Amino acid sequence: MNRLPPQVRDLIHDLPDSKIREVSLNSIGKPGLLAFWFGESDEETPDFVREAAKAAIDAGETFYAPNSGVEPLRAEIRSYMNRVYGGDFGLDRFTVTASGMNAIMLTFQALVDPGDNVLVVSPVWPNCSETIRIMGGEIRPVVLDEKDGIWSLDLQKLMDAADERTKAVFINSPGNPTGWMMSDAERDAILEWTRKLGIWVISDDVYARLVYDRAHAPCFVEACDPDDRVISINSFSKSWSMTGWRLGWITAPPSLLQPLAKLNEYNIAGPTTFVQHAGVAALRDGDPYVDGLVERLRRRRDLVTQALSQFPRVRYTQPDAAFYAFFAVDGMDDSLDFALRLRNEANVGVAPGIAFGPAGEGYLRLCFASSEAALSEGMERLKPWLS
Amino acid sequence: MNRLPPQVRDLIHDLPDSKIREVSLNSIGKPGLLAFWFGESDEETPDFVREAAKAAIDAGETFYAPNSGVEPLRAEIRSYMNRVYGGDFGLDRFTVTASGMNAIMLTFQALVDPGDNVLVVSPVWPNCSETIRIMGGEIRPVVLDEKDGIWSLDLQKLMDAADERTKAVFINSPGNPTGWMMSDAERDAILEWTRKLGIWVISDDVYARLVYDRAHAPCFVEACDPDDRVISINSFSKSWSMTGWRLGWITAPPSLLQPLAKLNEYNIAGPTTFVQHAGVAALRDGDPYVDGLVERLRRRRDLVTQALSQFPRVRYTQPDAAFYAFFAVDGMDDSLDFALRLRNEANVGVAPGIAFGPAGEGYLRLCFASSEAALSEGMERLKPWLS
Repeated sequence: MNRLPPQVRDLIHDLPDSKIREVSLNSIGKPGLLAFWFGESDEETPDFVREAAKAAIDAGETFYAPNSGVEPLRAEIRSYMNRVYGGDFGLDRFTVTASGMNAIMLTFQALVDPGDNVLVVSPVWPNCSETIRIMGGEIRPVVLDEKDGIWSLDLQKLMDAADERTKAVFINSPGNPTGWMMSDAERDAILEWTRKLGIWVISDDVYARLVYDRAHAPCFVEACDPDDRVISINSFSKSWSMTGWRLGWITAPPSLLQPLAKLNEYNIAGPTTFVQHAGVAALRDGDPYVDGLVERLRRRRDLVTQALSQFPRVRYTQPDAAFYAFFAVDGMDDSLDFALRLRNEANVGVAPGIAFGPAGEGYLRLCFASSEAALSEGMERLKPWLS
Repeated sequence: MNRLPPQVRDLIHDLPDSKIREVSLNSIGKPGLLAFWFGESDEETPDFVREAAKAAIDAGETFYAPNSGVEPLRAEIRSYMNRVYGGDFGLDRFTVTASGMNAIMLTFQALVDPGDNVLVVSPVWPNCSETIRIMGGEIRPVVLDEKDGIWSLDLQKLMDAADERTKAVFINSPGNPTGWMMSDAERDAILEWTRKLGIWVISDDVYARLVYDRAHAPCFVEACDPDDRVISINSFSKSWSMTGWRLGWITAPPSLLQPLAKLNEYNIAGPTTFVQHAGVAALRDGDPYVDGLVERLRRRRDLVTQALSQFPRVRYTQPDAAFYAFFAVDGMDDSLDFALRLRNEANVGVAPGIAFGPAGEGYLRLCFASSEAALSEGMERLKPWLS
């Protein structure tokens, strides 16, 4: 019998493993390890959200939900967006998704034919790029510039990267891992440019509320017309500490409501029904929680900044948003190897910069959404390595 | 300014709407309507599963989970599969997914390059076909034969449909909507043939336990070697009445564990964490529930069969599995129109056969997972239409 070995598509076979997972593999639960490698707060989901989920389970919200999401959640998303961005959003712009990640996958399924390319402002969380690859698209990184630990976007570089096969530009602002935050002026310039070319803006806004110098980050959806080619990705994971819940939403032109509903149907048929009802509580009652979380994160950021500023090998300026310290280490040319040594010898878990693309080499990412006690101890352990 | 209208990929634009949704649209909650159109039991999820979810929420299971699923659930899936199929499955064969639908999407992302084709035994639930299309693949329906309401597969027809671009054959047995169940001999013949060609079997086993004449349906995973190109799709939705929970699993060769973990990461990063812990309870403690559900469904099937056998226009033999009556209506040449009239004039919701592909035209699907009172009343209402 002529048997072939089990085989997947070449491009699936070649998909890189997450280098964050490579560092953390088999180390979760390592005694005494201080883990700052994942993009996740150490806080459990707040009680009022958990109680809402339990109440929905008791109420029998265990059946299939509509493809665009349950109506109470879609209405609450609309109310939230109107409140935060001061607009008057139509209900036909919102699609509930099973996480920000799922929203990104639906978006690229909708937009990317094989051979299309997407400009990706980098360094960036790698998952968006891999999603483009799965759909047969090409990723074109547009690398942010860094000077004295401050990140900035060269608009001309972005515009020069586009060609006739460019379908979209992917912008994560505030950005993971850099903390870079697009200005209002940059947003307006990018919007004007994409309008002229007819390409899409995919705006990954999952850190929009975790901002230290204003109420929310500049956002495309507050500046664009409803019919503009702008898709905003949002998530309950970061601002409401709901990583394990798998809930997010898309804000898009009304013309995308039906295509996205179909894609929801053919990908997962929508997130868990009672989780959607918990999402109502998060948006309706969660502003004090988000404000409190930002204050706790600000103290943690300041603690980390205070420590890192003492380490001679570190080049870093604290970010105005998100919950990452992304810092250059003088003389480190293999961030994966360095992160593995920190894990093994310092018992501290950080993410290697290379996990965020070639432009991230030379940096480490430390998520500071942990207790101040853990961060203080972690900084002590890192001191000999970064001095 | 030269603005183009918002636009998605041509093939996404052309994705058909579900014709079940077309019939049910704006009719959910219609006064007095008896809805038998969705593939969903009218039973809420059993209490012991709901309590397990609530306990997991209380225990703080609200964080990210590993890409292949939480270990307690993977271990319990292994135990379940060993118990039901009498094998000794390796843990490296199981990937937890956010529903059977999500498992199908991950599978076709792993296998289908643009231009590949997949043989699909039909009529079948349309979602698997649309998933192939989203990935740029071609669907080749292989139509079951029907005689006196009994469905059968012509193996030669299946084999003749393959060519050098055939990547897989998709088989849903027991089948939605037909209730067709593959025999042991057919399974063995298909397995031998796919081994020779090196093509994959995608075995959609979500109705494997809802069987009225034996303990479970014949299944590829009980007959194949671990390394055979066989992917089995499973779901908690039907047997444990957990449609709204979005939980399922894949059984695959060990070589697919890592590719599927990566695809999980890039699609949704796994189902809701505390839902996975509820899944442990469903599998561990759920056998009495499944047995009871099958008994209730058997009575409902018999009630429907008794009624349909009195209707002169109906051609139908009751199925040995799943929870659908899929019957031909003499003289009905537009099942969508007929279903719309039943909805509007008889106040009964059924799915039109055309929803399951061209081979389904001339038939209606009625899900009998409803109370006997609702079914009795429904049959009374259908009587004048089917006589």
